[in-house]
Amino acid sequence: MGAVLLDTVEAVRAFIARERRSGSVGFVPTMGALHAGHARLIEHARRECALVVVSIFVNPLQFDRADDLREYPRTLDADRAFCDELRVDCVFAPDVTEVYPVPPQCTVEVARLADHLCGRTRKDHFRAVATIVLKLLQIIQPQRAYFGEKDAQQLAIVRRLVSDFSVPVTVVEVPTAREADGLALSSRNRLLSADDRRLATALYSALREADRQIRIGVTDTDRIKQAALARVSIHPALRLEYLEIVDPDEMQPVATVAGPVRVAAALWVGRVRLIDNLLSIPGQAESE
Amino acid sequence: MGAVLLDTVEAVRAFIARERRSGSVGFVPTMGALHAGHARLIEHARRECALVVVSIFVNPLQFDRADDLREYPRTLDADRAFCDELRVDCVFAPDVTEVYPVPPQCTVEVARLADHLCGRTRKDHFRAVATIVLKLLQIIQPQRAYFGEKDAQQLAIVRRLVSDFSVPVTVVEVPTAREADGLALSSRNRLLSADDRRLATALYSALREADRQIRIGVTDTDRIKQAALARVSIHPALRLEYLEIVDPDEMQPVATVAGPVRVAAALWVGRVRLIDNLLSIPGQAESE
Repeated sequence: MGAVLLDTVEAVRAFIARERRSGSVGFVPTMGALHAGHARLIEHARRECALVVVSIFVNPLQFDRADDLREYPRTLDADRAFCDELRVDCVFAPDVTEVYPVPPQCTVEVARLADHLCGRTRKDHFRAVATIVLKLLQIIQPQRAYFGEKDAQQLAIVRRLVSDFSVPVTVVEVPTAREADGLALSSRNRLLSADDRRLATALYSALREADRQIRIGVTDTDRIKQAALARVSIHPALRLEYLEIVDPDEMQPVATVAGPVRVAAALWVGRVRLIDNLLSIPGQAESE
Repeated sequence: MGAVLLDTVEAVRAFIARERRSGSVGFVPTMGALHAGHARLIEHARRECALVVVSIFVNPLQFDRADDLREYPRTLDADRAFCDELRVDCVFAPDVTEVYPVPPQCTVEVARLADHLCGRTRKDHFRAVATIVLKLLQIIQPQRAYFGEKDAQQLAIVRRLVSDFSVPVTVVEVPTAREADGLALSSRNRLLSADDRRLATALYSALREADRQIRIGVTDTDRIKQAALARVSIHPALRLEYLEIVDPDEMQPVATVAGPVRVAAALWVGRVRLIDNLLSIPGQAESE
């Protein structure tokens, strides 16, 4: 009685219609290569919902680089076993032609929320993310959908997508899972060499330093960023794409910290791009 | 036991959840000023569905001209009586702040399908139409939604919207209702003066002439259009915005007729813009 693996829209809808009875459906959309971060999402869904559906779909439209799409880890057998272990009811793993039998003519355009952070260099990324999330929500029709805080900008966009279109689903935010040294769990971490894995901790260090500055009362974001950037050592394998301090709902950069902010960064470690963020509240003591 | 009038998302969802039981919900989205064309949509829904919901919402985002939005006929009391008569279960008539409590950041972008015909001069119109239709479908969650053939480009876009996003609804197309002289029913007809009403028949005459040419085997669309345009008399109150011959699914202009086509036109009669279209099949005898 493991997780049922289904690969068509028709089959997954039939499964849900048959199995949910009047219970609620919890949905965890993923791109596979599941790790302990996904486990938190799934466990959260398992606690709250009668039926738990995990989708595994590497959406080609949201990749801006062919090599990134090609190299993105694909581990379906392991993912399925992982889902079995976590008592997932159904794994929905369609191929690209099932999801996009023809190239879509209708897509979701995302305004201001997609302008900064990852949106600055990956213009079409969030349009593609919003489009696939909306489509998966239509296919699965869950009552609750689970997203990680790690992809904070994506989460803000999904929240806005759901409210702008009145999609009948509750978006549940699940805190970022981290390694012992603070590195946020990500499917891309497994692409890091051992050396690069050590260097990758710079990302969390920089965010923590920004967070520390904010908590002790520094409000000038240029100064905060400078202090944070000092934590990223100069190394040929490291390239900081951005480190920004934004308001947590609208994801717009702020010049002066006057309330809760999100500190977010993207760091290239060799050929691997890692992102992370922290919600930082001025004057509040550190939780860890 | 007339149609229940509701104006909030919460109330209409609660009504539907309570009243549909396990029956199907049929949805007729309108901008009000209901006429016999809408009656056809509603009657169709009434025959097929357990619960019939009509929405009345004049979506400001889909108007490109402030005067058109201001002058668009609003007749809620008459519309409600009209719906009572047709045994509609619920009229959902939200105001603008209920539908758009904040300006949407997520909207539907429509590609090629919106490039021609009405899309040529009303760039943002179809984005706004697709956005509101998608939102209303999320609010009502009908099994069937009814749209008129008269707005053929809108219908093609709605079909594509539903398939691109896998929205769980069946789109039902209902043929255009016409006056005795062929004028397609439209809420805007009531804005015509008596003189303009007489001139307005030119629109259908032109379409019929194009249709006749296609049926007798003319394939060159320039020649067909010329013959059609000859039916629109030169009059200071008349201005043809477009007359196009397009393929019926993709709404792209064709140079040579080689199968079913849609002949579509927009005609200004005084300050009123009227649209109409016919599906035309080469070699097929006329139905009327």
